[in-house]
Amino acid sequence: MTQKDFPVLNDQKLQELVHEVSQFGLSNGLVMYPPAPYKDYEPVLAPITIFPTPFPRKQFEKSYDIQKSYNKLYANVVSEKKWLEGIIEKLSIHDKPFTGKLWDCYQKALEKGIPQDVSLALTRSDYMYDETLNLIKQVEYNTVSVSFGGLSPKVGQAHTYLNKIGAYTGVPLSQYYEENELPISESDKKLARGLHSGVKYYNDKYLKGENKSIVLMVVQPSERNAFDQRSIEYNLLNEFNVLTKRVELPSVSRLVHIDPNSRKLFYQGYEVSVVYYRSAYGPAEFDLPETWRCRSMLESTLAIKCPSLLTQLSGSKKVQQLLTKQDNLSLFLNDKEIESLGDSFCKIYPLDDSEDGSLAKKLAFESPEKFVLKPQREGGGNNIYKEEIPLFLKSIQENEWEAYILMELINPKIHENLILRNGEVLNDGIVSELGVFGSYLFNENTGEIIDNQVCGHLLRSKTSSSNEGGVAAGYGCVDNMYLY
Amino acid sequence: MTQKDFPVLNDQKLQELVHEVSQFGLSNGLVMYPPAPYKDYEPVLAPITIFPTPFPRKQFEKSYDIQKSYNKLYANVVSEKKWLEGIIEKLSIHDKPFTGKLWDCYQKALEKGIPQDVSLALTRSDYMYDETLNLIKQVEYNTVSVSFGGLSPKVGQAHTYLNKIGAYTGVPLSQYYEENELPISESDKKLARGLHSGVKYYNDKYLKGENKSIVLMVVQPSERNAFDQRSIEYNLLNEFNVLTKRVELPSVSRLVHIDPNSRKLFYQGYEVSVVYYRSAYGPAEFDLPETWRCRSMLESTLAIKCPSLLTQLSGSKKVQQLLTKQDNLSLFLNDKEIESLGDSFCKIYPLDDSEDGSLAKKLAFESPEKFVLKPQREGGGNNIYKEEIPLFLKSIQENEWEAYILMELINPKIHENLILRNGEVLNDGIVSELGVFGSYLFNENTGEIIDNQVCGHLLRSKTSSSNEGGVAAGYGCVDNMYLY
Repeated sequence: MTQKDFPVLNDQKLQELVHEVSQFGLSNGLVMYPPAPYKDYEPVLAPITIFPTPFPRKQFEKSYDIQKSYNKLYANVVSEKKWLEGIIEKLSIHDKPFTGKLWDCYQKALEKGIPQDVSLALTRSDYMYDETLNLIKQVEYNTVSVSFGGLSPKVGQAHTYLNKIGAYTGVPLSQYYEENELPISESDKKLARGLHSGVKYYNDKYLKGENKSIVLMVVQPSERNAFDQRSIEYNLLNEFNVLTKRVELPSVSRLVHIDPNSRKLFYQGYEVSVVYYRSAYGPAEFDLPETWRCRSMLESTLAIKCPSLLTQLSGSKKVQQLLTKQDNLSLFLNDKEIESLGDSFCKIYPLDDSEDGSLAKKLAFESPEKFVLKPQREGGGNNIYKEEIPLFLKSIQENEWEAYILMELINPKIHENLILRNGEVLNDGIVSELGVFGSYLFNENTGEIIDNQVCGHLLRSKTSSSNEGGVAAGYGCVDNMYLY
Repeated sequence: MTQKDFPVLNDQKLQELVHEVSQFGLSNGLVMYPPAPYKDYEPVLAPITIFPTPFPRKQFEKSYDIQKSYNKLYANVVSEKKWLEGIIEKLSIHDKPFTGKLWDCYQKALEKGIPQDVSLALTRSDYMYDETLNLIKQVEYNTVSVSFGGLSPKVGQAHTYLNKIGAYTGVPLSQYYEENELPISESDKKLARGLHSGVKYYNDKYLKGENKSIVLMVVQPSERNAFDQRSIEYNLLNEFNVLTKRVELPSVSRLVHIDPNSRKLFYQGYEVSVVYYRSAYGPAEFDLPETWRCRSMLESTLAIKCPSLLTQLSGSKKVQQLLTKQDNLSLFLNDKEIESLGDSFCKIYPLDDSEDGSLAKKLAFESPEKFVLKPQREGGGNNIYKEEIPLFLKSIQENEWEAYILMELINPKIHENLILRNGEVLNDGIVSELGVFGSYLFNENTGEIIDNQVCGHLLRSKTSSSNEGGVAAGYGCVDNMYLY
């Protein structure tokens, strides 16, 4: 576990390296769109790190090893409906604009009836490596619209290319890293395989096994990260001959047809087996009432949702917080499974009237530097860090505190690396978050898990001065690891 | 040989198709840079056709079948040095600024000594299909810096993708073309293989078989078509573990070192086995005297040149014209080989004092509508068409006429197609040129041909109102064929 030093290069070698990685990336679709309004034919290189970032091999391997248990845990949470519904209903009081609306959607869908018991989840479990503890600690478990599974392999390929040509040593063909120290994620292929598990189930059950249904990818208007999504789409087509059609959330109701008897969903006359959301995860998207209507309408079709409303809601921070408690955990997993996950949990406290809540309210004011305060809903950009926590809590009513959870900060190592963004090289220390993708197809009513897979990884890094890690939002970048 | 009609799509389907092909292209490196000054990280979609263009299968297959004979013919022309030198020396009087300068370079290199007998050629034989004759006719045989071998496969892939998803029928997954009607060029891989034939020869002969030499790609400053070149470069690295370094022509002399005894060429300390020119083909590049010095300097090294000066000069239109005459042809090929090429030659006339020349001077004024007048050197944009020929000839001295050749125009079919360029859809008739890539490694002194290969194809199209076919120059686009 001796770690290689950060490669030393002079300015000229560095310039060459930037040129090499830029053209390699553009040649291989490592692109996104610039901020809107952009032109359909003018992408830019996605923000990336120039070097791979060190990550301990054992903890990397562990993250893969435990993914299926996390998948199972969250599938079981959803099928334990009463438990989850009770939590979400309570939570929706405190987060009316989002959790509350999603909950309403769910209620409306229930009224109409939800004819499909089976749900698909493509998820990403995000970790930081805590150097002091030598352990990965889970930051969050994302259950909707997980991104960068399409671009992550391309960053691994880019670093591998730079290593191969000798760009990290400055000596042609002399490699700084061993090949097996630079793992390339297979998330583009594996997430496609995950989607196919849903398609296949549907085709077998409703179409006598004929491969003629399509995936409906519900996207945001002016999506900058389209090429990340496309990569998965192209893999689904090439590997499984399954077509994906893209549609923007507010337009769905105009463009689809639902058979009133079978509740089958059709798009341009084509039967949809899986509705794959790469949208609908943040309040800003739901400014139009039409958006909520579409979300609810799709829920009550026979198509398999990826994710269903309940599966999306299971990714709430409140659920994450409750699952750090042994009592709750043992509702969903056996002792052996709990043990395997055990030390990957972070300490998370509620800010409610419970015993833990009282402790948390004390800690938030006495040692805020150890914590991050997070709202209960999806989407980055809203966390409150350290010393800002007391100020923030004082600025809102105490009965609103319950919409937040208090999470112990992880002590990540700050690594040397360079971020390349719009041609500019940012030379700050960086901190990294490891994400492991998973897919599971399961019956929300019976709890049966039909398919459960690990789907590759993502390393996302941000300058250490930035507290947020959203890449498309402009704070971070796509990275890949060097394993030591 | 019944030909499918041009697909009929409404505006909405067409818009969808444009969006699909744009994002597919950008996801797969089908890009170039916009006109300089551009940013290293901001490419655009390369100009392409949206539909494949009909091309008769038999003539397509023939173009592959005869490529090795053309390769052999031009290799033999070069090794018949006295013949070729005599022609070029005479020609250089009429084209001082380019042919003359290249000839000077060659003379200077000869003075220093040319220690390497073996040359590599990556060539492209360009044809138009003459509908009246039902034959392909050779437009030119390019012996230096042939382009679009890297992007051509990606256009084939893009059309195949559009066909697969049903974009050409407007019906999901319903294909308009059969898979085998859309041939995908392997020119990216095969041109890399061609380069490797030179590398391997050099390594075996001078490095005891050790794979440690590099390819020096000599490029133009601010090259817009960098990704076409990169594609070949990445294939060379992936398939053969051979590194390519890119260097701009005017900077070469500053950056290389030549061992005075062995004449070995070194770049950044690394031994160069093959100098691969993706530059040095047009007079404008040679504005700086330094450029000529570099070209000449590289020629007298032990590295294998792709192409050597003589091989580059063998691509002169004058040579092409002479080779249309049986007497000359039989100097280089046997009767069987001549027969196979026979009907692919165009009628070409000199404008000199010969019998053919006298005839040509008459034809140029009496029926100029049947001809194109071409200068003897490489690079598009300088041809004179039809009725402009008499005017042009009158505008220059008659003793300058000999620097041109008069070529019978081919009667191509004008096809329906749409060109996508910078987001704009051009709806003109198009004419297409088929290029077949070849590679040959040969000894210029003994005539021995060490390796001879066909390297895939390119279909280049232009609006029928444009007379020039340069793609990067902004007149045309990269296409691919539908074979009927």
